[in-house]
Amino acid sequence: MAGIAGFTGYSGAELVRILSRHPAVEPVLLEFRESGERPHPLNGRELKRMPCTAESVKSAGLAAVFLATPADVSMNIAPALLETGATVIDLSGAFRLGTAENFERWYKEPHGAPDLFAEAAYGLPEFCRALVAKARLIANPGCYPTAANLALRPLVSAGVIHREWGIVCDAKSGVSGAGRKPSLKTSFCEVTENFSAYALFDHRHVPEILRTSGLEEAELSFTAQLLPLDRGILETIYFRARNAGSAEEILEIYRRAYASEPFVRLYPRGQTPDLRAVARTNFCDLGIHFDARGGRAIVVAAIDNLGKGAAGQAVQNMNIALGFEETAGLL
Amino acid sequence: MAGIAGFTGYSGAELVRILSRHPAVEPVLLEFRESGERPHPLNGRELKRMPCTAESVKSAGLAAVFLATPADVSMNIAPALLETGATVIDLSGAFRLGTAENFERWYKEPHGAPDLFAEAAYGLPEFCRALVAKARLIANPGCYPTAANLALRPLVSAGVIHREWGIVCDAKSGVSGAGRKPSLKTSFCEVTENFSAYALFDHRHVPEILRTSGLEEAELSFTAQLLPLDRGILETIYFRARNAGSAEEILEIYRRAYASEPFVRLYPRGQTPDLRAVARTNFCDLGIHFDARGGRAIVVAAIDNLGKGAAGQAVQNMNIALGFEETAGLL
Amino acid sequence: MAGIAGFTGYSGAELVRILSRHPAVEPVLLEFRESGERPHPLNGRELKRMPCTAESVKSAGLAAVFLATPADVSMNIAPALLETGATVIDLSGAFRLGTAENFERWYKEPHGAPDLFAEAAYGLPEFCRALVAKARLIANPGCYPTAANLALRPLVSAGVIHREWGIVCDAKSGVSGAGRKPSLKTSFCEVTENFSAYALFDHRHVPEILRTSGLEEAELSFTAQLLPLDRGILETIYFRARNAGSAEEILEIYRRAYASEPFVRLYPRGQTPDLRAVARTNFCDLGIHFDARGGRAIVVAAIDNLGKGAAGQAVQNMNIALGFEETAGLL
Amino acid sequence: MAGIAGFTGYSGAELVRILSRHPAVEPVLLEFRESGERPHPLNGRELKRMPCTAESVKSAGLAAVFLATPADVSMNIAPALLETGATVIDLSGAFRLGTAENFERWYKEPHGAPDLFAEAAYGLPEFCRALVAKARLIANPGCYPTAANLALRPLVSAGVIHREWGIVCDAKSGVSGAGRKPSLKTSFCEVTENFSAYALFDHRHVPEILRTSGLEEAELSFTAQLLPLDRGILETIYFRARNAGSAEEILEIYRRAYASEPFVRLYPRGQTPDLRAVARTNFCDLGIHFDARGGRAIVVAAIDNLGKGAAGQAVQNMNIALGFEETAGLL
Repeated sequence: MAGIAGFTGYSGAELVRILSRHPAVEPVLLEFRESGERPHPLNGRELKRMPCTAESVKSAGLAAVFLATPADVSMNIAPALLETGATVIDLSGAFRLGTAENFERWYKEPHGAPDLFAEAAYGLPEFCRALVAKARLIANPGCYPTAANLALRPLVSAGVIHREWGIVCDAKSGVSGAGRKPSLKTSFCEVTENFSAYALFDHRHVPEILRTSGLEEAELSFTAQLLPLDRGILETIYFRARNAGSAEEILEIYRRAYASEPFVRLYPRGQTPDLRAVARTNFCDLGIHFDARGGRAIVVAAIDNLGKGAAGQAVQNMNIALGFEETAGLL
Repeated sequence: MAGIAGFTGYSGAELVRILSRHPAVEPVLLEFRESGERPHPLNGRELKRMPCTAESVKSAGLAAVFLATPADVSMNIAPALLETGATVIDLSGAFRLGTAENFERWYKEPHGAPDLFAEAAYGLPEFCRALVAKARLIANPGCYPTAANLALRPLVSAGVIHREWGIVCDAKSGVSGAGRKPSLKTSFCEVTENFSAYALFDHRHVPEILRTSGLEEAELSFTAQLLPLDRGILETIYFRARNAGSAEEILEIYRRAYASEPFVRLYPRGQTPDLRAVARTNFCDLGIHFDARGGRAIVVAAIDNLGKGAAGQAVQNMNIALGFEETAGLL
Repeated sequence: MAGIAGFTGYSGAELVRILSRHPAVEPVLLEFRESGERPHPLNGRELKRMPCTAESVKSAGLAAVFLATPADVSMNIAPALLETGATVIDLSGAFRLGTAENFERWYKEPHGAPDLFAEAAYGLPEFCRALVAKARLIANPGCYPTAANLALRPLVSAGVIHREWGIVCDAKSGVSGAGRKPSLKTSFCEVTENFSAYALFDHRHVPEILRTSGLEEAELSFTAQLLPLDRGILETIYFRARNAGSAEEILEIYRRAYASEPFVRLYPRGQTPDLRAVARTNFCDLGIHFDARGGRAIVVAAIDNLGKGAAGQAVQNMNIALGFEETAGLL
Repeated sequence: MAGIAGFTGYSGAELVRILSRHPAVEPVLLEFRESGERPHPLNGRELKRMPCTAESVKSAGLAAVFLATPADVSMNIAPALLETGATVIDLSGAFRLGTAENFERWYKEPHGAPDLFAEAAYGLPEFCRALVAKARLIANPGCYPTAANLALRPLVSAGVIHREWGIVCDAKSGVSGAGRKPSLKTSFCEVTENFSAYALFDHRHVPEILRTSGLEEAELSFTAQLLPLDRGILETIYFRARNAGSAEEILEIYRRAYASEPFVRLYPRGQTPDLRAVARTNFCDLGIHFDARGGRAIVVAAIDNLGKGAAGQAVQNMNIALGFEETAGLL
């Protein structure tokens, strides 16, 4: 059994949906006393429920606990949950940035469990699978960084990006990425027939991209933008290539990096993914265009922000950590 | 009176809407024999109609004719319409690229009226007002180039862009920019909850941007993308600055360029427009973010693709060419 | 000058938009101390502002004050505002139901100014124009009742509805009808790709429909439903006809009732309006289908809920009360 | 193996999606020579393909063939496909109406295979399971009739509807119900921010509702309306009850009718489904409101038009006809 804290949010509900079809794990709803929130009675009626406490997690013998909770909640309950022996997979930003200092710089709040950074594995399986496999605490990546790092890291590692000329990551996200808490910014009438940029340069997901891709802060221009749709992230990434004279050469780098990866799909040269292609999946789709004049390249990366960008990837991490088939429940 | 050919398309319908409120001009619907198309009976009942022929245009004494028609239609009827003495404002790409050779390279079809390039004025009033004022034939700019050139040309002229490091223009458009002709790509079920890139590097609007902004082809990476909404273009433009160390300095360049322009609005430093701000207007809104690390700048430009990007700008051009108040019917 | 209290809400913003183009009235923003809310700086910069108090309204000599505020706010500030001599047009439900008892039954709260019912005119000009013309306090109708009453009242008066067989009013509204205050029910991700019924039988707009149409509560089945769009109300109204054997006869009743009405448009037999036809207008469009088998009739009524359903109608009422051209600012 | 003709349409693609997860059946794409259409290369690459001919269906030994094709195509290829021994499940209207005369009245075209009506089973399992189980040709119901009949038939059978007072079925559908062929009516810019009624009284799905529910034509007022969303049908059904004095009594009729049905869900009294509840499922959800004044009842029925309204129900029918678990691949 795997517990889900924060099951009423969008990521939490997606965890419920995925785990309900998982062949090896049964989902359990972990309830906070004060909330009393209930999912749709017709769909969730058969799910087990218990309080979100270390006692109940321990006595039920949960193998894993997903925290689809805000960072401040996650950091406060993670220590006690880890004591129960459960693998804890946190979908918030609480443990992604390596140190409490980094967290405090970007999240503007003190960190409540700095000791846990030492054992938190960053849960991007394509690059950190071995660490995830033996971790007790997994920091599930942010949605924007998942797409950006899958697109950028192999290229940075292969040295084909002219880094001094700068990399642009123009990112667009559906509204569910902002969470389920009502706010004017995510109200229907403000979003429909609209499109807007926010957090230019200083989105808190930038340090996650830098840490994993290997880029420097001054090299990456990142913009987050809000699409009038529910689910999906598409990032259009621009750079200039060196030591690579064609889309084919760049594709070949991706092919080598992702040859055995079940959740990264490469498009033929000149084709790029749209959000439909990845909706309700755990895939990250990559396509590339190249223009020999100036060695300019554009990579388009697409994921479902609630799938590979959150709940799907969290289940993938659980599968790895608990020794299940990595794709279980995800295809 | 001003005639509108192609009044059933989205740009044509917007021309009807704008001209119906214009203080000095009465719209006339110019009908093609074969079409027999009729706008909504309740809204259009009082509008005059006549055949789209030189004879009827001449005998009615139309002062201006708007061609909201495909390029191949525009180039075929423009010569005869010009003979009538009417000012012709063409909203297609037929006369935007300066030469028949350029047209044929980008539009992949022969040009039917190459002699007219000599007298076609490019109708971006902020930069070409004097030419527009005395032109008989006005090539109304494309939607993407309007926003891109208003954002880029003052900066290129001022020499504050590190051009050798490349400029990225990540453009997003509403679906009405694709016209009213039914196609799978613009079908509701294909577009809703979706977002996709198309024409990476090789959009036919690129040469318009290059001609007016002064950039070279290898310097500009342009991507067009389809938003799940009706109207609006937002372009996120990235470059590295030289000789400019702050957003304020770049804003000052814009302020000088657009001090007396009625349709360009500048946002305070650190604020950027969204599509709501320009919907159903003739404004182009500009906002800038700057990051001193690397001298990186992001300009966000927003227009209504049917307003400043098509019909609104066409009326602005008519106002200039016919000597009306430039903002007549547009505020 | 006309003041607007509650200008940051959707109806209030629409009032600002309409009055900014009004030939005889200049809008003034009436600010509540605690709010400090500001409309978009670029669009609203030139508008006058003053505190929403009787003192400032009086010293500025405002001819009219629009209350785009919740019912409890409206009823509390209306008495003092009336003392200033300004005509008060309230867009809330505070004064629509004739008596404090009715208000308290449907709005479940005590009424703070029951004495004002005596002089409140119900502002549906097509039926109450004379009262509106001499009123100091105008209760602007609800959005659903505006469409329903314009469709039903002439037919009830003419006696062509088999009332004992029941009338169905299946109503659908865009999200802006729910106001601008953030809530889960109007969050983008809850509304997009969704459609839901609410307030079956017991919507608080039902008594407004009954009072004006002349129907009895047991005769009318009314359902409100939420469309995934911003603006617009469409009501599909079903009844059985007596003393009328064709769509033409019913249309004739409408023609007589609305012959001189500038804001009611009738569709030819067998055609019905959609929301596009009325978006951003003050029109109510009516279309009818008739089936001789059973004498069944369907009337489709469409309005813009922020136009004829709120701000547009409020301006129409102001025009009548202050002696302006009734259509001023509204065409 | 089960073949799918018309796999590029919306219903066909949904069949591919469902059958790809079916435990007992492998999908095969049946290609028409002239089309050459291919589904998304990344998602469909592993699927078998063969020509849509009786020869290939026979030599491959397909157990079932789904026809997600227009009625005229279905009626032409069904006879030869039946000869192969495959069970044929037709999603078009070709065989739903019982006789060629009925078909020709409502579809305005001659019927190419009138002999097959004798053996075509109407595939609404909740009422026709026994016939479906032994049928070689199954006429999969229309989307609107599926929801309407599941809501109405038990009530008509129980005699609780005052039929002489009329029944209203106000139906709303997502755009995918109109099929994938591009048309102006389903273009994004025409549909978004719009809502419209069509086919008032005379939709070709009406006779399907009458045949199965037991109502007479003059008793039922049916209106189809287009929602600005992709998938889903919601029908708001109004009637007056006799011999039933409460929502509870009506619910009890449903409970008895659907006690053992896996795909009909009943809501507690006073709750009604929205489209989210049924999206991407094979469920039909029913909720009821009742008002003792006048004995008025409202039933809200919701389905996914591509699920229970098309592909899902088609797979349910296949499961019954081929002896699989009825819910296989559908939960």
